[in-house]
Amino acid sequence: MSLAVGVIGAGVMGSEHARILRKETIGAHLAAICDADEARARSAGDGQGLVFTDPLALINSDRVEAVVIAAPDSTHKGLALACVEAGKPVLCEKPLAVTAAEALEVVEAEVAKGRPLVQVGYMRRFDPPYIEMKRAREAGEIGVPVILHNIHRNAVVPEWFTGAMSVTNAFVHEIDVSRWLLGSEMVSAQAHCGEGGDPLMITMVTDRGTIVSTEVFMNCRYGYHVHAQLVGRHGTIETAVPVTTLSNASGRHGFSYPDNWVPRFRTAYANQMNAWVAAAAGGQSCGGANAWDGYVTTSIAEQVVAALETRTLTRLSLPPRPSCYG
Amino acid sequence: MSLAVGVIGAGVMGSEHARILRKETIGAHLAAICDADEARARSAGDGQGLVFTDPLALINSDRVEAVVIAAPDSTHKGLALACVEAGKPVLCEKPLAVTAAEALEVVEAEVAKGRPLVQVGYMRRFDPPYIEMKRAREAGEIGVPVILHNIHRNAVVPEWFTGAMSVTNAFVHEIDVSRWLLGSEMVSAQAHCGEGGDPLMITMVTDRGTIVSTEVFMNCRYGYHVHAQLVGRHGTIETAVPVTTLSNASGRHGFSYPDNWVPRFRTAYANQMNAWVAAAAGGQSCGGANAWDGYVTTSIAEQVVAALETRTLTRLSLPPRPSCYG
Amino acid sequence: MSLAVGVIGAGVMGSEHARILRKETIGAHLAAICDADEARARSAGDGQGLVFTDPLALINSDRVEAVVIAAPDSTHKGLALACVEAGKPVLCEKPLAVTAAEALEVVEAEVAKGRPLVQVGYMRRFDPPYIEMKRAREAGEIGVPVILHNIHRNAVVPEWFTGAMSVTNAFVHEIDVSRWLLGSEMVSAQAHCGEGGDPLMITMVTDRGTIVSTEVFMNCRYGYHVHAQLVGRHGTIETAVPVTTLSNASGRHGFSYPDNWVPRFRTAYANQMNAWVAAAAGGQSCGGANAWDGYVTTSIAEQVVAALETRTLTRLSLPPRPSCYG
Amino acid sequence: MSLAVGVIGAGVMGSEHARILRKETIGAHLAAICDADEARARSAGDGQGLVFTDPLALINSDRVEAVVIAAPDSTHKGLALACVEAGKPVLCEKPLAVTAAEALEVVEAEVAKGRPLVQVGYMRRFDPPYIEMKRAREAGEIGVPVILHNIHRNAVVPEWFTGAMSVTNAFVHEIDVSRWLLGSEMVSAQAHCGEGGDPLMITMVTDRGTIVSTEVFMNCRYGYHVHAQLVGRHGTIETAVPVTTLSNASGRHGFSYPDNWVPRFRTAYANQMNAWVAAAAGGQSCGGANAWDGYVTTSIAEQVVAALETRTLTRLSLPPRPSCYG
Repeated sequence: MSLAVGVIGAGVMGSEHARILRKETIGAHLAAICDADEARARSAGDGQGLVFTDPLALINSDRVEAVVIAAPDSTHKGLALACVEAGKPVLCEKPLAVTAAEALEVVEAEVAKGRPLVQVGYMRRFDPPYIEMKRAREAGEIGVPVILHNIHRNAVVPEWFTGAMSVTNAFVHEIDVSRWLLGSEMVSAQAHCGEGGDPLMITMVTDRGTIVSTEVFMNCRYGYHVHAQLVGRHGTIETAVPVTTLSNASGRHGFSYPDNWVPRFRTAYANQMNAWVAAAAGGQSCGGANAWDGYVTTSIAEQVVAALETRTLTRLSLPPRPSCYG
Repeated sequence: MSLAVGVIGAGVMGSEHARILRKETIGAHLAAICDADEARARSAGDGQGLVFTDPLALINSDRVEAVVIAAPDSTHKGLALACVEAGKPVLCEKPLAVTAAEALEVVEAEVAKGRPLVQVGYMRRFDPPYIEMKRAREAGEIGVPVILHNIHRNAVVPEWFTGAMSVTNAFVHEIDVSRWLLGSEMVSAQAHCGEGGDPLMITMVTDRGTIVSTEVFMNCRYGYHVHAQLVGRHGTIETAVPVTTLSNASGRHGFSYPDNWVPRFRTAYANQMNAWVAAAAGGQSCGGANAWDGYVTTSIAEQVVAALETRTLTRLSLPPRPSCYG
Repeated sequence: MSLAVGVIGAGVMGSEHARILRKETIGAHLAAICDADEARARSAGDGQGLVFTDPLALINSDRVEAVVIAAPDSTHKGLALACVEAGKPVLCEKPLAVTAAEALEVVEAEVAKGRPLVQVGYMRRFDPPYIEMKRAREAGEIGVPVILHNIHRNAVVPEWFTGAMSVTNAFVHEIDVSRWLLGSEMVSAQAHCGEGGDPLMITMVTDRGTIVSTEVFMNCRYGYHVHAQLVGRHGTIETAVPVTTLSNASGRHGFSYPDNWVPRFRTAYANQMNAWVAAAAGGQSCGGANAWDGYVTTSIAEQVVAALETRTLTRLSLPPRPSCYG
Repeated sequence: MSLAVGVIGAGVMGSEHARILRKETIGAHLAAICDADEARARSAGDGQGLVFTDPLALINSDRVEAVVIAAPDSTHKGLALACVEAGKPVLCEKPLAVTAAEALEVVEAEVAKGRPLVQVGYMRRFDPPYIEMKRAREAGEIGVPVILHNIHRNAVVPEWFTGAMSVTNAFVHEIDVSRWLLGSEMVSAQAHCGEGGDPLMITMVTDRGTIVSTEVFMNCRYGYHVHAQLVGRHGTIETAVPVTTLSNASGRHGFSYPDNWVPRFRTAYANQMNAWVAAAAGGQSCGGANAWDGYVTTSIAEQVVAALETRTLTRLSLPPRPSCYG
């Protein structure tokens, strides 16, 4: 009754997924772990799971029932396709693929297979603050939503991460979570860019006229800080920074930010894994991002990158949604 | 040694200015008050000051040394011009005029007179939170500013107040205070508009590349709420809602918002009056918005109204600044 | 490798422990559930676990390896003794017994058995805010602790719950967590009592001179609110209310309190169960309250009840700690 | 129509009172300033007011209509008596005298004179957070008050300031403001003392059974921090730290404390002076602490110092209140 999960990749996220499978997941176990660096794989498994260096061998192993992909972005598409081919549920770290065209290949493969197998790791859908915001909106507690303000700040990144990269790798979280929170599709985007490509300020509008305003700042220095405030016609609801304590020291009152997304979203990652495992075991969706969501997110990101050049209002275009995605 | 100040208009703001002159201003007294409704003028004076029904008579009275204009917007230009003509310092409620062309007339009259006499009542420049933000920026405490997020929410307004009106009457505060906070001029603007013209989301960029993002929401329902966060390359600083107490009641912890701008900016209005009086007595500027600032603000507002139609990025244009405005 | 746990009691806490065992515990499963009301037991088990109506049968069943006691307080001592007799690890809801004398019987039985088997369910030791406070104190981040301020507020209780009952059933949490946080024993207590026995204000002093000040208010009306601030010679650290979102509505900004201790301490209860299961499986202590702690807490509570009458400073007395409790 | 005020003492508080009279007071002016150090007096006057070195000369000068006493504590009684003798309104810095017996002399002199002339500078009565708390209590917004929690923390003091001195010079603020907030008299006190006489934890009970719990910590290191929370049977209200901005820097979110009581209570001191001036001009009380309040506060402080030794519950005793104090 325990799902045998294999994890591909033993870097920061792969190790974290392996740890969650070992320590915080009900109904599943770490059955296998794969990394080109075998010692790293072994270390991430911490004594649990078969060790692989070939991801396709892991995917096709009969000791593995479901797969987590946490290898480099460029491998996501190929590995996801292999999982679909093998008929195994897969939780693929975001983005689903490095281009929209590649992401669409995964969608098409899944549609051809006739069965949803892919979940993309947009973990904010499992974060308690976002879940509470969505619940409040759906319950009508704030009235019709008119603006969603997102802030996505990271302490510091390498130089190559800013500009287009911060859209396709960081802003994708806001694309996904905004669509999910609002239950709407984005129809236009307009972008401003700070000096050196950081920060960005991106304004999207949904098919219901809600304005989605997002700051993406990869080098804010002071810490990792993600915030969202949803403004409705009767009130607002916003995420609280999840802190355990407040302190007084050296003339100041306040709290500390987490260093990065791993501690900030620790609960979300664990919830995501447990929900995915339950869905994979039971065959039902758990509300995670599916392959179509993964494709849309990457496609919008590509169009926003283009909008960064033109700075004009860009009408977003998407192909029709395959009927199997509801 | 006490400056004799006459107040024109005895509505909400005129009465408040009269009260501040009577109760909270050092070095000045309420010498006269004018309203078409004589009883209303008398009531606002509360036993102090001559009562006028003709504003020009007040301006030209030899019992009045300086003038506060708080009459309807459409009268501002004419009254300000009369004050300039009479050579009397004037604190004119915002906006300086209902069109940029009219505001420019005031600028030109003042330039011709060769002496700055006009201050426009952009009181946020005297609000402790904004003053502290400007000080911190100038002291380099947050590094180079990259984004300024403004939120301007009002509980409820009549229907005619939304759309263009919320730009020319509400958003003008953000235009002025953003220019002042950043010490920069705005060079472009782009605007999004919610259903029914409310809320608006406006993105401007300064001549130094700082992005200024503003939500203007005239019917947010929950209260009067003005917020600004300045994001620099090393940290951020933001306004705190000035509250005296916190409470626990009915399952919730929190604080109350003021009902409108009068209680929220009570300290700012008193500071503004005291600073203006000291400057009027001493002939030196107190850092308030001058006629040029009043013109620029209204001119940018007009251009933003146009941008609301086109939704494209609008390059803002302004005539050269007369040398007397430094 | 999965520990077979039996739960005695299917009321609020018993059902919650059963749910945690079914849904949130690694390395254990709900093997049995017992309640005098068989239907209630069945319902709490939700399809898992054998159903018992006789708690001793559950304790002695060879299908049960470890026991959770969540039956009425008056049964705790007898059931805990039976678990000790059976040599099975037991997590007993607080208090360990209704009198100190009875609690001491459990201690003595355990000492005679020569092996620690009892953990008392003082779950705050597993609550992230308290854990962070203890870590900060031990790391010297606030300097030598001089005062601990505790606030324990409950929305509403039946009339019989106030006075002595609020000491022996509510304040016991502060006795335990203060001893644990400070790593010190209490040596004196003094108590004030509000009208009708609610609220209480109790001041204790530790063997290192730290003052522990606690408000216990069983009918505060506004919600369930537990707070602690530890004041050291260099700074302070305090618990934050664990909230996910903040909202603006009806003129106010703020957050909601949980209704009672179950949602407030959800994470603590799950952590406690996982830690106890790991310890029960591995035979090592997990830092939970042991039988001695359970005895001391109830003994101090009894002495505080006496101090409520006299209102004078009461020197607390405890027998020597058996060596096996370190 | 402008009240001629003389200030005695040009130290920290005397200079501040002189500044307030020069810059922030309506209806009064700095007519004279006195200090044994003439240059210091001159500097505090900043060009305004006659300079005295003999305080009695200032009090008796016909150029002075009302007096502010901000000289060393030991002089308060004598100077206050001289003001009463001269029939001049006086605002005397706290404490009214260094012993209760001396304070009672001032009360008796005033009673003999038949006219209230003395106000003691317990400025918290004019602080917006405390005013709002009192208003809320009187309006019944929190129900019957059951506990008042006070915290009085100072960054650092000289060694001689702790112990008894922190009661008679710091805790007196809590005695006065608690009596005023609750509209009740204190009837018992009990005190605990940290190592080295700092911090103190003092519990008083009022004649209506409200518990008043106060921490006094003179060397908390992190800043100047005064807090009060009033707990009623339906909810609580507490002071907010009056901050203008919040910041994010170096991994933390928060705000700064003021360095000491002067910036923290800047508004309260200015309000107090304006209210006292208006009352002195009009002959009516402004709600400040009168001589009786000054006596009671010092008398209770003396009894608390004694209670620090005994640590037992001390019943507080006061003589009957003279009828002229209502």
